[in-house]
Amino acid sequence: MSTKLSDIGERRLIEIIRSQYKYRWSDDDAAEIENGNNYTIITTDSISEKSHMPKGASLESVGDFFAALNLSDIAAMGGTPKYFMAALTLPKNMNSKELIQLEKGMGRCLERYDVKLIGGDLKQGTEMTLTGIAIGEVSKKGILRRNGIKRNDVLCVTGRLGKNAAAYSMWKKTGRSRWAQMLVEIEPRIKAGRLISDYGATSAIDLSDGVFSAISQLSKINKIGFLIDYSKIPIHSIAKKVSKQLGLSLEELALNFGGEYELLFTVPRKKLAKLKINAKINGIEISEIGIAKGTKNFLVKNGASRQIIGKGYEHFTK
Amino acid sequence: MSTKLSDIGERRLIEIIRSQYKYRWSDDDAAEIENGNNYTIITTDSISEKSHMPKGASLESVGDFFAALNLSDIAAMGGTPKYFMAALTLPKNMNSKELIQLEKGMGRCLERYDVKLIGGDLKQGTEMTLTGIAIGEVSKKGILRRNGIKRNDVLCVTGRLGKNAAAYSMWKKTGRSRWAQMLVEIEPRIKAGRLISDYGATSAIDLSDGVFSAISQLSKINKIGFLIDYSKIPIHSIAKKVSKQLGLSLEELALNFGGEYELLFTVPRKKLAKLKINAKINGIEISEIGIAKGTKNFLVKNGASRQIIGKGYEHFTK
Repeated sequence: MSTKLSDIGERRLIEIIRSQYKYRWSDDDAAEIENGNNYTIITTDSISEKSHMPKGASLESVGDFFAALNLSDIAAMGGTPKYFMAALTLPKNMNSKELIQLEKGMGRCLERYDVKLIGGDLKQGTEMTLTGIAIGEVSKKGILRRNGIKRNDVLCVTGRLGKNAAAYSMWKKTGRSRWAQMLVEIEPRIKAGRLISDYGATSAIDLSDGVFSAISQLSKINKIGFLIDYSKIPIHSIAKKVSKQLGLSLEELALNFGGEYELLFTVPRKKLAKLKINAKINGIEISEIGIAKGTKNFLVKNGASRQIIGKGYEHFTK
Repeated sequence: MSTKLSDIGERRLIEIIRSQYKYRWSDDDAAEIENGNNYTIITTDSISEKSHMPKGASLESVGDFFAALNLSDIAAMGGTPKYFMAALTLPKNMNSKELIQLEKGMGRCLERYDVKLIGGDLKQGTEMTLTGIAIGEVSKKGILRRNGIKRNDVLCVTGRLGKNAAAYSMWKKTGRSRWAQMLVEIEPRIKAGRLISDYGATSAIDLSDGVFSAISQLSKINKIGFLIDYSKIPIHSIAKKVSKQLGLSLEELALNFGGEYELLFTVPRKKLAKLKINAKINGIEISEIGIAKGTKNFLVKNGASRQIIGKGYEHFTK
């Protein structure tokens, strides 16, 4: 039986792909290669014009975004990004000025994190499609995977949530470039990733597909559930404003939306205090939002508990 | 001043991109990362539906082709491919059967060379765009770069040339799927790459952009010229047939066309005999076609010598 990809959804598609191979590769976003006491970690992420480049955002910002979202997967593994490669498929009626803007943004992001461009590919295609390859390093001891969660580990998140969802909603509503710009202005949490690795985190994942999706993935991989306390979710002030202005659910904006690049991670209770102190020293905001417990995922909100079945943003769904 | 990419050409575009960065990365197709006594080498190559997937070729063959052309860049560096990642941007109206065929072909090629798929990305886009990342290993001593050519080194090529150009011409003429299939049936010259590295090659490049293009690149990087003897070019029997049938220049088919994945390499004269013996033992055809000499490139044909100014296939040209 043959079904259109749009009827299947991204994660099921990945399982279909996996079923074609006799071996199984890692569930993590980055692949690891032995390198002495370290792993070289390699990750790839693509964006294309219609799906990921909101009208109104400058090409320079898109270039920055393109590099940043690739570095985010290195951050989520506790690694330090070192190198970047860019495979660009570009329409032939694009002009050289636009290409230079794109490169400028990409270069700006890479410079910010001391990452060197070391190669790539340039091809012609119908739609602008940019594939990045981020290459980083992490000590074998310090690597953060998606598995490794122990019962009673505390679930934490960096930063504040919902800004991206708010920007998207406002951009859809108003079409104003201010919101398009906000959508692509992201920072990979590299410093935070290294810090939580140094202070005993047992797993990490970035929030590129949203909190509910990240939790559902961690839950599946670790065969463990999470109990999340809604009152402890750190919500971005812009999300609060937009929620009021557009009458949108704050919970949806903060938890059930992709495009955010904060890190969700677990840490043993006894290591939390020391981690928090050091995070504060380094200007990194960390919030304890739940605990690993049972086998299903629950959100406790206003005294009531309900099971989380949402999955955040998936590609290839209508 | 702003110009359309199609007015600029691929190699000039790469220079424009380079000019945006303060440092310069390698001219080789693969990037190298230190790994003890070895280098981990990483390369990326994209194909998209309209530009690189001839109508009539099965998706399974396209998948095989996609993996093979990425492995070819590892071969050209004398390396052994180990891992592969695939970032697939797919149209949502593609169906799951097609995706499975694509994966089957990709898996078939990877298995043939004992390469493991270790991850990737899956996104939605307007046109099918596949970006591969091949990761290999090569000893520091054995790495083959594009530079390293010494005066009087012998210029050699593996296999026989012109089959791909012939298939393309026939496919354009007849539209028959037999020729489309032939176009995407390529083999990366991994065994040959390792052998020439073991027996003293000083540089190598694959022929994906054609012989004239490869020579012009080697010449530029090494600031050296080549004197090529047309009578020594190993021409594929299919190219000879098609040249007659369609009245096309055999020289054009064999030397000025991309899509071929043989290796062009240089080796010191005194090492040639031993290399040839060992190539023969391993069933690898090697032909001596010229010599590194002077500063310009010349083709000697029928007793006359003319300067090579052709550049083979470039993306982003009309």
